[in-house]
Amino acid sequence: MDATEEVMEARAGLQLINPAPYNAEAPAAALVGEITPTEFHYVRSNFALPDHDGTFEIGGAVDRPLTLTLDDLRALPAHEYAVTLECAGNGRLQMRPLPTGEPWGDYAVSTARWKGALLSDVLAQAGPAANGVEVLFTGADHGSYHLNPVLADTNRDDLWFERSLPLSLASDPSAEILIAYEMNGQPLGPDHGAPFRIVVPHWYAVTSVKWLKRIDVLTEPFSGEFQTGHYIYEWADRPHEPVALMRVRARLTEPEPESVIPAGTTTVRGKAWSGTGPITRVEFSLTGAGQWFEATVAEPTGPYHWQEWSFEWDAPIGRHTLMVRATDAAGNVQPEVPEWNRLGYGNNAVEVIYVDVV
Amino acid sequence: MDATEEVMEARAGLQLINPAPYNAEAPAAALVGEITPTEFHYVRSNFALPDHDGTFEIGGAVDRPLTLTLDDLRALPAHEYAVTLECAGNGRLQMRPLPTGEPWGDYAVSTARWKGALLSDVLAQAGPAANGVEVLFTGADHGSYHLNPVLADTNRDDLWFERSLPLSLASDPSAEILIAYEMNGQPLGPDHGAPFRIVVPHWYAVTSVKWLKRIDVLTEPFSGEFQTGHYIYEWADRPHEPVALMRVRARLTEPEPESVIPAGTTTVRGKAWSGTGPITRVEFSLTGAGQWFEATVAEPTGPYHWQEWSFEWDAPIGRHTLMVRATDAAGNVQPEVPEWNRLGYGNNAVEVIYVDVV
Repeated sequence: MDATEEVMEARAGLQLINPAPYNAEAPAAALVGEITPTEFHYVRSNFALPDHDGTFEIGGAVDRPLTLTLDDLRALPAHEYAVTLECAGNGRLQMRPLPTGEPWGDYAVSTARWKGALLSDVLAQAGPAANGVEVLFTGADHGSYHLNPVLADTNRDDLWFERSLPLSLASDPSAEILIAYEMNGQPLGPDHGAPFRIVVPHWYAVTSVKWLKRIDVLTEPFSGEFQTGHYIYEWADRPHEPVALMRVRARLTEPEPESVIPAGTTTVRGKAWSGTGPITRVEFSLTGAGQWFEATVAEPTGPYHWQEWSFEWDAPIGRHTLMVRATDAAGNVQPEVPEWNRLGYGNNAVEVIYVDVV
Repeated sequence: MDATEEVMEARAGLQLINPAPYNAEAPAAALVGEITPTEFHYVRSNFALPDHDGTFEIGGAVDRPLTLTLDDLRALPAHEYAVTLECAGNGRLQMRPLPTGEPWGDYAVSTARWKGALLSDVLAQAGPAANGVEVLFTGADHGSYHLNPVLADTNRDDLWFERSLPLSLASDPSAEILIAYEMNGQPLGPDHGAPFRIVVPHWYAVTSVKWLKRIDVLTEPFSGEFQTGHYIYEWADRPHEPVALMRVRARLTEPEPESVIPAGTTTVRGKAWSGTGPITRVEFSLTGAGQWFEATVAEPTGPYHWQEWSFEWDAPIGRHTLMVRATDAAGNVQPEVPEWNRLGYGNNAVEVIYVDVV
């Protein structure tokens, strides 16, 4: 099997959103178990699959610029966590007016086990300068890019994918940010950032830069396109904000939306997650019920990934709308209406599905 | 075949929403042709199927109270029109927060050929009094009813389905309101109001009272539950209004939502209608297109039913969101965001679907 065949096979289980750059949603099966099988993990790319020479550099405001390889990373203490990654544009299709941007449904979210070295360990080797404020990650992916597909004359000939984090966060061992080289026990596949990538728990996945090529310590905040142009909440009614931590959200995985199910007791279940704390409450409702019922929420089995919830429902014949709403430990709760912003990020509105009970 | 079997067979082609009272959406096939086959015409009921003795009375403020039969109606000049009937709650499922009420998707709309006597002819026989202001229609359907399913103590033991229209409209021959006794060339079936019903062109179908039992000329405006409690737009930001004429709307019937279609030229098509004038314009758009394209709109083939529209689209591989927007001769145009009201009526927002092109 050549490299192209390998990539095509790895993509066979996904729902294509865009062939170039390649973007694909997870199937419903991605949300069934605690861990999403790699072949069902959604893929978000901004450019074509890049070449990568197997090294990355650490530079900028550091005492000891470094060039590291996969073997160098493997020589450092290994850490492995299940991490829920969600695209900031997940759920965009539900926003009205429909924002421009990849038409993600609700399946740009998955959970894999990611293994790698701690970013904080690698940064410590390089020795960030005292006046460093941010850490910039540059992927190997780049190419032409329309800053605004709707406007003419906004094309860039060669833009690189770059995102920064505060140095204080990046160098904090307790943040457990990974330079990951394994996903679900295997080396990273091409679509997931081979040979290594950043994985930032709790943050929307835009910050988890794939195909890592450079880490630069900056003495001024970064203001590149993917930091200040895209991935910004352009709210209609309040100041703009950068996309950062995942907003609290529950998904309903059973029964499937618009499915036909038999009348009687059925288990409604799904996943819930938040970047601002463990899920403390999941509530379930039906149109006309006029109230929310407490669902059962499983304890977290790790700090960085979704939790299971379930509710026993005695389903009567007819069409029924099912709604689920999560609350996290910080007190954040899902809104009933998607919070519209121009680029369509962070839709964590209460999910509403219907089923036909026969 | 007994009466129950006949009813069950007539319902076999529909999508059940509620078994009691019986409510069912049309299948997609209902919107394919100019006329919806009777077995695919949606059904909206507020109570159980009533008994009907084959007569209706005209009373109240009239000179000559009458009792009429089907034969009496058939003896009057017959009029037949294709009429698009839409439930005021059609599209409720798309509103957020989700309103209470029957969870209609987007298929509580159909077009049949309705034949009957003119209401104005029948009223003229009875001779409305000079001080008459409204005409009240009473169906044979009645029963217990929760005025507000969410609140306790709002149950009525025996409510009848009653709706009024202004006398000036009801007695205007040019309004062509029918007391219909045939649907698509056959006697009315039980779910469609047998033996006769009102059909009011251009109005949301709540006014087209089924199983007609009484017509009363009133000297004061009617204020019953289905006139002033339900079927009212309870807007959040402006005065409440009664549900009346159908709001301008286009539906996209091909390709089917969420379907997988081959790349290349494909005809996108559908229906458009309005209670406030013929459709003069239909526009089509795609996410990221940043503009609306003119679709081809067929001339109306009658005054009271939907028009065809189509657009030739060169579909590239990937997921694409399709949007369609209609404008009518009065200048009304569909909004991009559903206009929320507490009971969820009149959602005529631009339809957004997606297809996966392979």
